[in-house]
Amino acid sequence: VARPLDLEALGEFGLIEAIRRRAGSVRRPWLLGIGDDAALLRPRAGTDLAWTHDALIEAVHFRWDTTDAASLGRKALAVNLSDLGASGARPLGFLLSLGLPQQARPAQIDGFLGGLLAEARAADCPLVGGDTVAAPVWTLGISAVGELARGRALRRGGARAGDRLLVTGTLGGAALGLALLESGAGGLPGAAAFVRRQQRPRPPWRAGPLLARRGPVSATAAIDLSDGLAADLGQLARASGLAAEVWVERLPRARGYAALCHGRGQDPEALALSGGEDYELLFSVASSAPAAGVFQKRLGCRTTEIGVLRSGRGVRWLRHGVRLPDPAGGFEHFKTSRAPSDK
Amino acid sequence: VARPLDLEALGEFGLIEAIRRRAGSVRRPWLLGIGDDAALLRPRAGTDLAWTHDALIEAVHFRWDTTDAASLGRKALAVNLSDLGASGARPLGFLLSLGLPQQARPAQIDGFLGGLLAEARAADCPLVGGDTVAAPVWTLGISAVGELARGRALRRGGARAGDRLLVTGTLGGAALGLALLESGAGGLPGAAAFVRRQQRPRPPWRAGPLLARRGPVSATAAIDLSDGLAADLGQLARASGLAAEVWVERLPRARGYAALCHGRGQDPEALALSGGEDYELLFSVASSAPAAGVFQKRLGCRTTEIGVLRSGRGVRWLRHGVRLPDPAGGFEHFKTSRAPSDK
Repeated sequence: VARPLDLEALGEFGLIEAIRRRAGSVRRPWLLGIGDDAALLRPRAGTDLAWTHDALIEAVHFRWDTTDAASLGRKALAVNLSDLGASGARPLGFLLSLGLPQQARPAQIDGFLGGLLAEARAADCPLVGGDTVAAPVWTLGISAVGELARGRALRRGGARAGDRLLVTGTLGGAALGLALLESGAGGLPGAAAFVRRQQRPRPPWRAGPLLARRGPVSATAAIDLSDGLAADLGQLARASGLAAEVWVERLPRARGYAALCHGRGQDPEALALSGGEDYELLFSVASSAPAAGVFQKRLGCRTTEIGVLRSGRGVRWLRHGVRLPDPAGGFEHFKTSRAPSDK
Repeated sequence: VARPLDLEALGEFGLIEAIRRRAGSVRRPWLLGIGDDAALLRPRAGTDLAWTHDALIEAVHFRWDTTDAASLGRKALAVNLSDLGASGARPLGFLLSLGLPQQARPAQIDGFLGGLLAEARAADCPLVGGDTVAAPVWTLGISAVGELARGRALRRGGARAGDRLLVTGTLGGAALGLALLESGAGGLPGAAAFVRRQQRPRPPWRAGPLLARRGPVSATAAIDLSDGLAADLGQLARASGLAAEVWVERLPRARGYAALCHGRGQDPEALALSGGEDYELLFSVASSAPAAGVFQKRLGCRTTEIGVLRSGRGVRWLRHGVRLPDPAGGFEHFKTSRAPSDK
């Protein structure tokens, strides 16, 4: 039986010790030491590093009535793995900044650590340090480092005119999951898959390093879809100095998605374009690259061609060749026109 | 005139752009790219990396009635530089996770960024990425990376029996500064230096890389004093598997420190041992190493010999050879016996 994670009894140092025990001993050729102050790394020769940071804050990024502790732990790491994958990097390890309110329940802390460390094991991305602090609400900061072959990083700005746009997986499902949870409809037939997408995203980060390699299934630019296709494609196009054209009838949707959207009064197209939190990979490939089906086979995940990059600026949205009005932007912090709890 | 940092008007992406402009363009041989998702690094051959994370949270680590935005910005980076220095590393760059409440005032955000970026310039440690999020209170996460010569990292656990204990600077001043601020006595004659120590610590992180080199002024172990000498020396001794003996009459104190302590009803010895936030460097050296004065000259900061490490366990506190009772531990999050706002 695990010793209960009672904050008041454990104190900060006891909590750190408990996390250390849960994480187990970590040995990696690139890891010289784990410390409270600093982790010591020796990157392999011939590699570059990708280094990311993402925070999840209670009542902003998640609420306890729409997620559980183990899912939160998985998601906290998964969103960082997604960032690394979009850079073409394979995860190495991460630091956890764990901010807990005094009233955090031992079972919650336990569940969170269990989910986090399970995700870490699955990704072979061990916890190698961090800090623990008191905070008014759950405040999770994760900084992760990944490695990639020298000079092979995927960048947002690497695309050229004529490149084709591909996306992994399906779009809008995470936002639909949140809408279902928030309206108390998480138990509807067919809802579970979307609820899971919201609570436990599984970014296809392993596709990143494959796309970063030289070869036939190589990407010219990439970004992960955290803020929604409209916002994130805008970033990729802008960084590449290009215009994008998207064929919305081709946007990949999961089975049952449109019906559940309609049943909840949600516009399936709007969620797919602006819903956010899909954590799929959007990438561009040379016009001469193989068909999407070849990418799908090599990456091991659904891959759909959704548009093209051209010289110019901005994003044009077409349905069967007819131009649509621009969709709303994705989620943006501090814009109160959309409440922070929307996400 | 800088564009005011109005969160609602700027939104998240506007804020990121404003920070980018303030930070200016960053070119470093080790930096391949700055991104929202991941910074791309190419460490130099023959170096190891130290990687740290520290969070500062409003009402836990700081309060607006005892600090100002520019000081907070400096401190947020300085505490991470201190961690890097204690590992023997020279700072390379940092990621900022900036969590702001909706009501954060533009002047506060501006002051914070000004202080942070000034500290970054002074340390040649540029901002290379991060994220910005809404948060219930100011929530600052900084992850920093530093480099050091291969295999030369300073560790907590590197000391041997017979090694001597040295400390930079003076002790207790930051805690005295906080006591002065909290009792509204920050304006007393002589108080300013201690208030500054609390609000704007200046860790001697440059000493770390010097102590990490092979040579006469080489350290065998090191830790930065963030939680107080009692707690942090305990960590160093435990990690090295040794006992420590400290001569409290030798603990370095700033001029005017004891008098101001007495005037505020504070025990100067207790603050020096357990006050925390001094961000000085505690390190051990071989018994055959030069006298403290030689270290002082090479490190360019006051350096005092305060004790010795022996075989055994625990820390013994002696005043003129007479054993004292153990002091209270340092600050520890989640222990409500001492209110979080104490720190």
